[in-house]
Amino acid sequence: MTTLTGIGIGRGIVVGPVLRMPDPLPEPSTMPSTIGPDSERERATGALAAAGEDIRARGEKSGGKAQEVLEAQALMADDPTLRSEIDSKIDGGATAERAVFEAFDGFREMLVGLGGYMAERAADLDDVAQRIIARLTGVAAPGVPESDTPFVLVARDLAPADTALLDLDKVLAVVTSDGGPTSHTAILAREKSITAIVGVSGALGLADGDLLIVDAGAGEIVVDPTLEDLAAAEAAIGAQDKRGDVPIGPGRLADGTHIPLLANLGSVDGIEKAVEAGAEGVGLFRTEFLFLDATSAPSVAAQYAQYSKLLRGFPGKKVVVRALDAGADKPLSFLNDAKEENPALGLRGLRALRATEQILRDQLTALVRAESETDADLWVMAPMVSTAEETTWFVNLANEIGIKTAGIMVEVPSAAILADRVLRDAAFASIGTNDLTQYTLAADRLLGTVSSFQDPWHPAVLTLIAEVGRAGAALGKPVGICGEAAADPLLAVVLVGLGATSLSMSPSAIGDVRAELAQHTREEAQRLAAEALGADSAKGAREAVRAALALHN
Amino acid sequence: MTTLTGIGIGRGIVVGPVLRMPDPLPEPSTMPSTIGPDSERERATGALAAAGEDIRARGEKSGGKAQEVLEAQALMADDPTLRSEIDSKIDGGATAERAVFEAFDGFREMLVGLGGYMAERAADLDDVAQRIIARLTGVAAPGVPESDTPFVLVARDLAPADTALLDLDKVLAVVTSDGGPTSHTAILAREKSITAIVGVSGALGLADGDLLIVDAGAGEIVVDPTLEDLAAAEAAIGAQDKRGDVPIGPGRLADGTHIPLLANLGSVDGIEKAVEAGAEGVGLFRTEFLFLDATSAPSVAAQYAQYSKLLRGFPGKKVVVRALDAGADKPLSFLNDAKEENPALGLRGLRALRATEQILRDQLTALVRAESETDADLWVMAPMVSTAEETTWFVNLANEIGIKTAGIMVEVPSAAILADRVLRDAAFASIGTNDLTQYTLAADRLLGTVSSFQDPWHPAVLTLIAEVGRAGAALGKPVGICGEAAADPLLAVVLVGLGATSLSMSPSAIGDVRAELAQHTREEAQRLAAEALGADSAKGAREAVRAALALHN
Repeated sequence: MTTLTGIGIGRGIVVGPVLRMPDPLPEPSTMPSTIGPDSERERATGALAAAGEDIRARGEKSGGKAQEVLEAQALMADDPTLRSEIDSKIDGGATAERAVFEAFDGFREMLVGLGGYMAERAADLDDVAQRIIARLTGVAAPGVPESDTPFVLVARDLAPADTALLDLDKVLAVVTSDGGPTSHTAILAREKSITAIVGVSGALGLADGDLLIVDAGAGEIVVDPTLEDLAAAEAAIGAQDKRGDVPIGPGRLADGTHIPLLANLGSVDGIEKAVEAGAEGVGLFRTEFLFLDATSAPSVAAQYAQYSKLLRGFPGKKVVVRALDAGADKPLSFLNDAKEENPALGLRGLRALRATEQILRDQLTALVRAESETDADLWVMAPMVSTAEETTWFVNLANEIGIKTAGIMVEVPSAAILADRVLRDAAFASIGTNDLTQYTLAADRLLGTVSSFQDPWHPAVLTLIAEVGRAGAALGKPVGICGEAAADPLLAVVLVGLGATSLSMSPSAIGDVRAELAQHTREEAQRLAAEALGADSAKGAREAVRAALALHN
Repeated sequence: MTTLTGIGIGRGIVVGPVLRMPDPLPEPSTMPSTIGPDSERERATGALAAAGEDIRARGEKSGGKAQEVLEAQALMADDPTLRSEIDSKIDGGATAERAVFEAFDGFREMLVGLGGYMAERAADLDDVAQRIIARLTGVAAPGVPESDTPFVLVARDLAPADTALLDLDKVLAVVTSDGGPTSHTAILAREKSITAIVGVSGALGLADGDLLIVDAGAGEIVVDPTLEDLAAAEAAIGAQDKRGDVPIGPGRLADGTHIPLLANLGSVDGIEKAVEAGAEGVGLFRTEFLFLDATSAPSVAAQYAQYSKLLRGFPGKKVVVRALDAGADKPLSFLNDAKEENPALGLRGLRALRATEQILRDQLTALVRAESETDADLWVMAPMVSTAEETTWFVNLANEIGIKTAGIMVEVPSAAILADRVLRDAAFASIGTNDLTQYTLAADRLLGTVSSFQDPWHPAVLTLIAEVGRAGAALGKPVGICGEAAADPLLAVVLVGLGATSLSMSPSAIGDVRAELAQHTREEAQRLAAEALGADSAKGAREAVRAALALHN
């Protein structure tokens, strides 16, 4: 029996056998073909057709969203432009494998260059290319493995394209060697309520069939457990099932303190799910969806229609809308400068809106109009605020246009450090833990090589959150959390201990967080928060909190 | 009489007439040529030759470093590849202006794509293109204006290429509308001891010949001063000349407290100048120069030779060497990943060294060897440290190899926030205010559109510095400053008040800082620091400190 540790997502405990995600194929050799262009072209034709059929068949089997993704992939295998690229490379002497690799790679670069949604399709292209090359070389295609029995999926990391293809009835848990708590795998796991542990060094040493106990709450994996271990795990699962039965209702601590549990939404499509999960309103409504894929900002009328729909979905409830947060990884051609060396540190969020004020004015106008016709409680916040001066500017403009409750996102260290000054004018603060972590540790949250830094449990990040909590309490202003951190049940308790007055998250995470909050009093949350603040590292903070809980229980 | 304000560099007061830097030329129209390719090609030939001659003549007149820069520029005007690009665009129907613009722009993109030193040549290409296009359109060439009498140069901002061409005997002061205290203009002004005020809104409203009083210490420009104003300015200049006469010697506060004044050096070439300026050692020796322009890391022997030279330059003195800080705007092909979306948040500094540990081991080995033969006091620090864990890793490795005094740069917010934990293992901390400001405000320090955020006077940055100062005092560990902030005499006093125990800067700034420190006791410095910490903004902090000083004097 050995034990591996990593960053657990959620609180699930699962027992099951390993199924490994196959490794990506090596890059095909650049050695020229030895069988000549005609034969290579024939091989390519066969592989393209077979891969396309294979992908289509898997789509039909999956249905739903997965089928859409796979249909789009199958079309890539049939694409005539790609085919003619492949042929011309074969005519230049390349093998079919190399020609497919280069043609798809060139196309991929083009998509990445276009940025935004197009760039996200690049991963799908990779997936198709890998399947075709696997056909050509006669090896197993990489990608999500298939099995008729439930398994624990072990991978380096999951790509976005893998997501839609996961058969949730079969995947008991996901274990990855790479990625941090805000990696794609972690976000997916939270959204789909999949038990997961990410960043597990040693995960790639696991072999198909190894039996595991995956304990996400403890961030621990037991490999080849003893019968005793298994019995303990079953008992823990049973206890958890019972504890998880917190009825849907307002978020409350064990002492009755009300901590509203709100939903993060990226469009009006999620309203129903949020209401079902018992969201007490919306803590973060992202408005980028209205602007993406557009060549200019949408009209006031078009925005009004969407905001009306949103606000009508939450009668009598709080709805926090974030003003357009364009830039960084979500650039808009009409708002952002494509040539920034470090877009995450560039003219993004409120900075970009100030440079094109009419876009902000239109958005606020549409929001005021929508609010006047519903009885939802609209709050509006500015993204990417660094200074007190920016805060004052935004709040004044919002009030002038008719927004009653105007606040700011705290995601830049300076805004947290000067929270006492920033909250003088802002009606509220909402902490975006993902960006706050990225800037505090100075590590790109989308970059794999520095993903180990992207952990909101880091005491430096928690110290800044505590600063905002303190300022909010002193000035009587609400302090919400709307980053991924709020969806981690144990961290959610710590955040409340640091002064968070509400928590906003993916609707699917609300149940787990509600259940965990109900276990702890405010005093206990504050004690746990103090433990986390005193640690040396993110790992240390997690361990200190778990140890304090174990001591207590 | 009107008054403009901005960020003053240094403490100089100057009186003189405005000379404006001509605006850049508009982009040439894409309308096709109306005179045909033969005539356009003839025009291009004439303009290229004339611009080349003109540039060469200016070089001969200037001599020295300026001549080298200009000779290189003249070669660009003669470049056959560029010429054939221009011709092919003319054959495609373009005007000569447009053809020159596009050919140079294409070449420029290529250089920028190569990164590093090559990318820096891009600005020179722009300069040459502008001169050729100016010739073609018959307007004045942009660039540093020339005059036989002294003047105050007023510009949007100075480009690196302008630097070498400034005739320091003629430039009384520099005033720019853009740029912050760490912009290229500000750095240049400090290096060359030029009185300057940057970020002056309204500067571009000044006309050639306007008489100005430029008071950098006050950050104030009086336009068309009265006779009374002029008399007051002359008196202030006289008083300052007297005060400036602090003899070369150790940096001391008015109460005698020793604050060592050290030099920032980018290679061994600066040793002599640093010693002349009375530097009490080296506070930051950047080692990148050894690695740039190389395709692999230099050998231990090659590094040893340079470090020996450095250490022998400072017998009995402290010399702080920074381990290789590659990445961000200084990528190395053998160390960094060129494809990072946000290199400033990427695998840079210590992160990159950990990924290629042998490079760090070799560097430390060469340093140990060099130290053993001299009696300089060698300290070595790691760049871009975010966590306590990284600190421990670096200090252990450095000690193992034989470095006696191993510390870290504090330039990431998390390292400052957790200074008490980071300084447990580190022997000392040195605060890099440029990067610390960049990350704390989440604004790229090299990006013009967000340059207003790049101000180390910001209370959020000062709060973090105070945190490090406090931790250093509690643990008895030295806390130095090695960013541009230390070269701002008034800010230097505030930094000492925040707990800095030494200051490192461009040698040319040492005299001004020494003079300013001598005016204040430690108690006063702490009082000024408290004023700055309590402000709402960088501007507010500056004003609060100046107001407190005025009250006192």
